[in-house]
Amino acid sequence: MDFFKVESVDNAKEKLIDKFKNMEINTRNEDILNVTGRILAKDIISNINVPDFNRSTVDGYAIKSSDSHGSSESMPSILNLKGEVRMGEKAKEEIFPGEAIYVPTGGMIPKGADSMIMIENTEKIDKETLAIYRPVSKNENMILIGDDIKRDQIVFKKGRRITPKDIGTLSAMGISRVEIFNKLKFFVISTGDEIIDLDEKLEIGKIRDINGYALDSLIKTIGGEVVKRIIVKDNFHLLKDEVKSGVNKADIVLISGGSSVGVRDFTYDVLNSLRGSGVFIKGISIKPGKPTLVGEVNNKAVFGLPGHPVSSIIVFKVLVEYLAKNILGVNEHVQKTRAIMDFNIHSSPGKETYQMVKLDEKNGELYASPNFGKSGLITLLSNSDGYVVIKDHEEGLDRGEKRDVYFI
Amino acid sequence: MDFFKVESVDNAKEKLIDKFKNMEINTRNEDILNVTGRILAKDIISNINVPDFNRSTVDGYAIKSSDSHGSSESMPSILNLKGEVRMGEKAKEEIFPGEAIYVPTGGMIPKGADSMIMIENTEKIDKETLAIYRPVSKNENMILIGDDIKRDQIVFKKGRRITPKDIGTLSAMGISRVEIFNKLKFFVISTGDEIIDLDEKLEIGKIRDINGYALDSLIKTIGGEVVKRIIVKDNFHLLKDEVKSGVNKADIVLISGGSSVGVRDFTYDVLNSLRGSGVFIKGISIKPGKPTLVGEVNNKAVFGLPGHPVSSIIVFKVLVEYLAKNILGVNEHVQKTRAIMDFNIHSSPGKETYQMVKLDEKNGELYASPNFGKSGLITLLSNSDGYVVIKDHEEGLDRGEKRDVYFI
Repeated sequence: MDFFKVESVDNAKEKLIDKFKNMEINTRNEDILNVTGRILAKDIISNINVPDFNRSTVDGYAIKSSDSHGSSESMPSILNLKGEVRMGEKAKEEIFPGEAIYVPTGGMIPKGADSMIMIENTEKIDKETLAIYRPVSKNENMILIGDDIKRDQIVFKKGRRITPKDIGTLSAMGISRVEIFNKLKFFVISTGDEIIDLDEKLEIGKIRDINGYALDSLIKTIGGEVVKRIIVKDNFHLLKDEVKSGVNKADIVLISGGSSVGVRDFTYDVLNSLRGSGVFIKGISIKPGKPTLVGEVNNKAVFGLPGHPVSSIIVFKVLVEYLAKNILGVNEHVQKTRAIMDFNIHSSPGKETYQMVKLDEKNGELYASPNFGKSGLITLLSNSDGYVVIKDHEEGLDRGEKRDVYFI
Repeated sequence: MDFFKVESVDNAKEKLIDKFKNMEINTRNEDILNVTGRILAKDIISNINVPDFNRSTVDGYAIKSSDSHGSSESMPSILNLKGEVRMGEKAKEEIFPGEAIYVPTGGMIPKGADSMIMIENTEKIDKETLAIYRPVSKNENMILIGDDIKRDQIVFKKGRRITPKDIGTLSAMGISRVEIFNKLKFFVISTGDEIIDLDEKLEIGKIRDINGYALDSLIKTIGGEVVKRIIVKDNFHLLKDEVKSGVNKADIVLISGGSSVGVRDFTYDVLNSLRGSGVFIKGISIKPGKPTLVGEVNNKAVFGLPGHPVSSIIVFKVLVEYLAKNILGVNEHVQKTRAIMDFNIHSSPGKETYQMVKLDEKNGELYASPNFGKSGLITLLSNSDGYVVIKDHEEGLDRGEKRDVYFI
């Protein structure tokens, strides 16, 4: 198998979307106490006005604003005090010219009143008489019906990742359950005769399964679910059996390993031997991560990720997370920041290069310095804050340039 | 109760740390498959070298580098080929001058060899003869014992929030279980006669419990656990009973509500009527959020948060999250970005002002524009990306300034 006809990252993304655009993920109705971080599967439309009554934002008196015009410290307006509206209760009385009613913060403003005057700007002369010392304008110190949310308004769109602020907004509308997408299901296979699990004895020449665990954690971080994690020896039939089981149980199968040519060949052959269009992306012009395969088996996505931990995590972030978000129609900003590049780097045009960086703040500016290292080192990753992308038409980046740094 | 002697935000933080510095949270030993996002309760020290054998980073031949010196396309060095090291197996043979052994990527480099030459730079003349066409230097194309992680090295410090990259590093060291802090337990009380829950009928004058739900979601987002969420009417005895139960069941009790003076007074009296030093922070010079109370009851922290959703979420971010991280010794960067302020704002010195903003990218620069609005509006929050902080000694901020924007 050759890697001469590799795809650009953009092409690979386009092919992925095109191939899996009809993938359907079940949805379910869930209590809002359990949906933080989940993806909305239906638009949220309010069927009430919020607030659904005119509400005071101060402790004070509901009046007709025209009654306050011209009033001052030396020349107060005198109004007839009609009692009070109690918190959480309906305002039963109506305000006519020359009248005032006490309303606490959050209380309902009675019919006829069009403003609230703060208690600090008034004086209660006796039980039935109120002096007001400054004018207020119409709608001052009040929130009107529907000011916050209007009935029939589309408040949140399908595809939104639900945050704590959204939970507050949902509860304001009295919405206690919402339709969310089920978690995307992943099946994670690590391949390689040298790979052993954490509970096995480490013999010289073997290495621990790093990718299986790192991918498991990444999947959970993006809101997915791992249905199975398994280590498979370099054997066509064993790998084929697991991929077959993977596409039955999960939406996305990740095979990592294949630092050796042999394993890449197995993976290629396995994907082409099962039901589906087989491998449709054979290598990507990305560094690190070039020997990545993507196939379609039984309408499920199967990724053959590189064996090096750094490479496989980069490809996960660039392609797998991208696909996962697209399947659910997730509409959100990528977590990134801008920083000044504190280094020069030359890259090969024709390749999209992902350079690991560390971030430092100096004099209120953020600087990115490179973290070089052999891609076999896991600490290259854990010592980095993020990466910068050098696109395939660029020849590198220059010290002093400002670029986006994507968090890992 | 007056709010004349309010604390600065920095003082309030100091008092919080001082009061609860001896709070102890239990830890537990957990499988690394379940610890993403959790807080490490013990330093992680490696008891092995990673790798624990010299490893090849290429497919090629292990040789003595001195045997390659002076070799070129026109003048290859000829070496004696001694077979191969198989993936995942111990290299049994030793390399002597004039000898080469095939090693795949990730394979173990045999004793005596000090470099790897890539297969592309060699030619296999026959079963026992290898021509090499370029020189390699010592340690080229190999990862040495301990290059990634050294035995006895402190790899992660206690207080670290565990990320997917860390999970990869832990598995590289063969660590399958780590000691983590239990989730901090929160007890969430919403107060107010006007507050009704989502399953109750909305009558005119009542409003939905927004804070209880938003706080529940925020608590989960920072890795805490809500042991109970309850709505309590404006009544001293009812509130006292719930706070008593809260400090028995949880580490932190949040009481939100008290937009009316009466509720603030109840909360104050309840905190002072129970075992402990009672209210020790009575108002904070923060906008919004001034009428915040903090007390100590039974060695637990009890916060009286403002009733307005925006205010209570701001105070949660500024003080409650701060305390929660300090109790566990969490050592991490706050999620923020830098943006150019696209507005002028005047603020009252002596108050730390939190201004909600929206972020927009124009010509590769990030701009923040203000989101004004009555603090009673929940949509003020859901339409904002974050906030900027105007410190209490500042008089405002100027258009064109660069400032940190904290995400909400």
